[in-house]
Amino acid sequence: MNGAESLLRTLLACGIDTVFANPGTTEMHIVSALDRVPGMRVVLATFEGVVAGAADGYARMAGKPAATLLHCGPGLANGLANFHNARRGHVPIVSIVGDQATYHKPLDPLLAADTIGFASGVSTWVRTAHHPSQVGAYTAEAVQAATAPPGGVATLILPSDASWSEGGVVAEPLPPFPPAPAGEAAIAEAVNALRSGEPTIIILAGAALGRPGIDHAARVAAATGADLIAETFNTRAAHGAGVPDVGRIPYPIDAALAALAPYRHTILVGARDPVAFFAYPGKPGRQVPAQAKVHILAHPEDDGVDALARLADALGAPALVSQPAAQRPEPAQGAITPAAFAQSLAALLPKNAVVVDEALTFGFPLYAALAAAAPHDCLQLTGGAIGDGLPMSTGAAIGAPGRRIVDVQADGSALYTIQALWTQAREKLDVTTVLLSNRRYEILFGELAGLGAQAGPASRDLFSLGRPDHDWVKLAAGFGVEGARAETMEQFADLFGSANRRSGPFLIELVIP
Amino acid sequence: MNGAESLLRTLLACGIDTVFANPGTTEMHIVSALDRVPGMRVVLATFEGVVAGAADGYARMAGKPAATLLHCGPGLANGLANFHNARRGHVPIVSIVGDQATYHKPLDPLLAADTIGFASGVSTWVRTAHHPSQVGAYTAEAVQAATAPPGGVATLILPSDASWSEGGVVAEPLPPFPPAPAGEAAIAEAVNALRSGEPTIIILAGAALGRPGIDHAARVAAATGADLIAETFNTRAAHGAGVPDVGRIPYPIDAALAALAPYRHTILVGARDPVAFFAYPGKPGRQVPAQAKVHILAHPEDDGVDALARLADALGAPALVSQPAAQRPEPAQGAITPAAFAQSLAALLPKNAVVVDEALTFGFPLYAALAAAAPHDCLQLTGGAIGDGLPMSTGAAIGAPGRRIVDVQADGSALYTIQALWTQAREKLDVTTVLLSNRRYEILFGELAGLGAQAGPASRDLFSLGRPDHDWVKLAAGFGVEGARAETMEQFADLFGSANRRSGPFLIELVIP
Repeated sequence: MNGAESLLRTLLACGIDTVFANPGTTEMHIVSALDRVPGMRVVLATFEGVVAGAADGYARMAGKPAATLLHCGPGLANGLANFHNARRGHVPIVSIVGDQATYHKPLDPLLAADTIGFASGVSTWVRTAHHPSQVGAYTAEAVQAATAPPGGVATLILPSDASWSEGGVVAEPLPPFPPAPAGEAAIAEAVNALRSGEPTIIILAGAALGRPGIDHAARVAAATGADLIAETFNTRAAHGAGVPDVGRIPYPIDAALAALAPYRHTILVGARDPVAFFAYPGKPGRQVPAQAKVHILAHPEDDGVDALARLADALGAPALVSQPAAQRPEPAQGAITPAAFAQSLAALLPKNAVVVDEALTFGFPLYAALAAAAPHDCLQLTGGAIGDGLPMSTGAAIGAPGRRIVDVQADGSALYTIQALWTQAREKLDVTTVLLSNRRYEILFGELAGLGAQAGPASRDLFSLGRPDHDWVKLAAGFGVEGARAETMEQFADLFGSANRRSGPFLIELVIP
Repeated sequence: MNGAESLLRTLLACGIDTVFANPGTTEMHIVSALDRVPGMRVVLATFEGVVAGAADGYARMAGKPAATLLHCGPGLANGLANFHNARRGHVPIVSIVGDQATYHKPLDPLLAADTIGFASGVSTWVRTAHHPSQVGAYTAEAVQAATAPPGGVATLILPSDASWSEGGVVAEPLPPFPPAPAGEAAIAEAVNALRSGEPTIIILAGAALGRPGIDHAARVAAATGADLIAETFNTRAAHGAGVPDVGRIPYPIDAALAALAPYRHTILVGARDPVAFFAYPGKPGRQVPAQAKVHILAHPEDDGVDALARLADALGAPALVSQPAAQRPEPAQGAITPAAFAQSLAALLPKNAVVVDEALTFGFPLYAALAAAAPHDCLQLTGGAIGDGLPMSTGAAIGAPGRRIVDVQADGSALYTIQALWTQAREKLDVTTVLLSNRRYEILFGELAGLGAQAGPASRDLFSLGRPDHDWVKLAAGFGVEGARAETMEQFADLFGSANRRSGPFLIELVIP
């Protein structure tokens, strides 16, 4: 057995049966081993950013990592932005990167690059196998490293001779690390804060935003009067009618500061002490007011759900009384606005959908409105590197078969990884992309204003995606995805309904006036 | 004056008047400064790989660097593959990367990333300005570093507060470093080799492939019987009818070894001791036979043109006798094959065109055939990171106004940076893209065979771009570029002629059967 075969057999032994791939020559023996080793689903993407983002979306829904297979150095580099998003979202990915043969690399062939350096910035674990006998063992380590709480990207670099040489050994899976329980002192401190009578907010992130975590948090809130909020960008959140409503910290800096200003206690459950996305002159970097006390109930690597359950019990919080679900609105009519779109999406979202939210500015009212939608999961851009939405939807569809994926997708962001549409067509994935075509980097107008500057001719031109406009229906068709244009909310409602009833992908270009 | 304004004014003082950009929030004050500082041409691209590749193409044609403006960490990461190509081609680029404000970065905001780590692998110089007073001086240093022979990417990282704070100082340009003259000993050694009577080949690269260098080399060859050849992948080569014919080392490993096998002396002029692109089991890594002597006439950072002139004089080589130019062929008819396509391109290439060659497998006969085409410059993929062709063409058109750019472009490679088409439309660039649609990663079939493996079902699927096929005419139209499909060589000839006569970009999808 060569090293490549031991890689695949060890991945399968560890329960990893899906690989997103854009291989090259240094990965040829791994590709060849795929011909001989059954049981691995192989999904091709034509750009590495799609590979990385699809693995991100897959793991968020499947609850286990996919593997990625990328070409040495520059191929990995093309995937870094979405690996960055996975890193920030604590999403487990086993990233396999080929490399020049060990004895060839010292000759510095043209494609040789700083593979370890590129990987290090996004990885929780990086290791190079120098001999086929190491490949299986390192693969099992990589799986363990990727899934070790809080989760991350584990990068295994395989020089081509480690893949092609005989001497591979399949490794047994290593035991996974469970999340650590929160300490008693952390729970006691949170109890004291919640009983202080001072305004208190609980910030949720990570696994705490699954339904059990939210339910425990809602018990705590009901028993103490504390407020609940989620981080601005969340890996996966249960959301919709019947789910206790947890808002998000707003993205715009002034709104974020205002949302957290009233509180004297902040309890973090898997969340970070919230920090502004960027620095703005004269505004604080931390979003919690300086005089508020910050209590860590659970670090990201801790068991936040268990911590919330124990906190609720310690407070003697009664079981949740099921509340009447929010009334689903009617679809909006007429002009396309952020509020009208949010209303229609809440009205029309299919049951058990997965919403991928890379809507940016046009989606500011979306999350609040979707509290009244049919229950769903919401996946967001966790690292701020735009261009995760289309790939994440692609992977989520593979990780959650039978559920409709609804990608609410800003146009500027979509362009970074537009090649994902082809993989959606090829794999016949149930993805509805709502392409929000405002033909500009709207967020940058806001950011420029937030910095106190005025947009002049050069900035207006740099923030415009017009001259010419992109034709998204043609682009989708070019990648093999059917699409249509909506210029009123009524047209959107018709198209959205029929898109979600069909099998396979569809793109709706929502033309924002 | 703030730091951002000192950046732009220093760039202009250094003669850098073109910036390719995909900025974000950390670059807002630089964008705002573009509103106030006249004289900079700003070219927007919607993906950073296009920015980097366009700067690569621009510098190859303009003979001076462009600046690039990219967003912190992940934005830079998206540009690394084409910066890698520029690094390998010794192409000067001044890469400006924004970053989190100095005082905000320690809070580790979500978008913070390993900017220095990402940049280091592709840069000849990396520096961070921590205060606005440093920005101008570092900018002048960056220009000097990018253009110092042999040339490369100089990365200047600008935290946003270094841009927005007052205290910027415009710097004077620093004196450029000239290339070093080759030593007398190197010339004497080459003379001895050429007079040895043993088979000798001169390998040219870099500036030696401009017309003066090729002419001097041709004098040497005529006087001594030595053969001339270029590296496999060249930054810019004068080529076509009337230019002394210099072939290339073939890409396929066996052909490369065969091409160099006859020689006992190899003289390098700006070229590397040739190394196989990848390792292949049982085949050597160096392509020159082990028993051959390697003589370095000029390192990449030396003045190879001057060294060739001095070598020719030392040999007493007579002035070049102008040879009758190769006869231009007739356009091919009928079926689309590599040979027919190469023949038609040689027949129909407009005068003074710039050929961007990312044709890969379908283009193997191309370079030899184009020796009979109208004189042109040929730009190739210097680092092996596919996805440089469309961006390089975009930048070359801006760097060489008035010349037609002909991008001979493999389909799989085109997908990595397809967003370049939109920039071509927006800037109304005279680019004809010949999209070679074979609907597969043909090169990987060859690489798999070269490794001694057979393609099975998994590999065939991973190497196929079908299911569904891309519709390149629709994709081009979606980005605002007109296009049409050619299914015979006659149709190609018609479309190619009309594309080259028009103003602005056009895409021909050459449907390879």
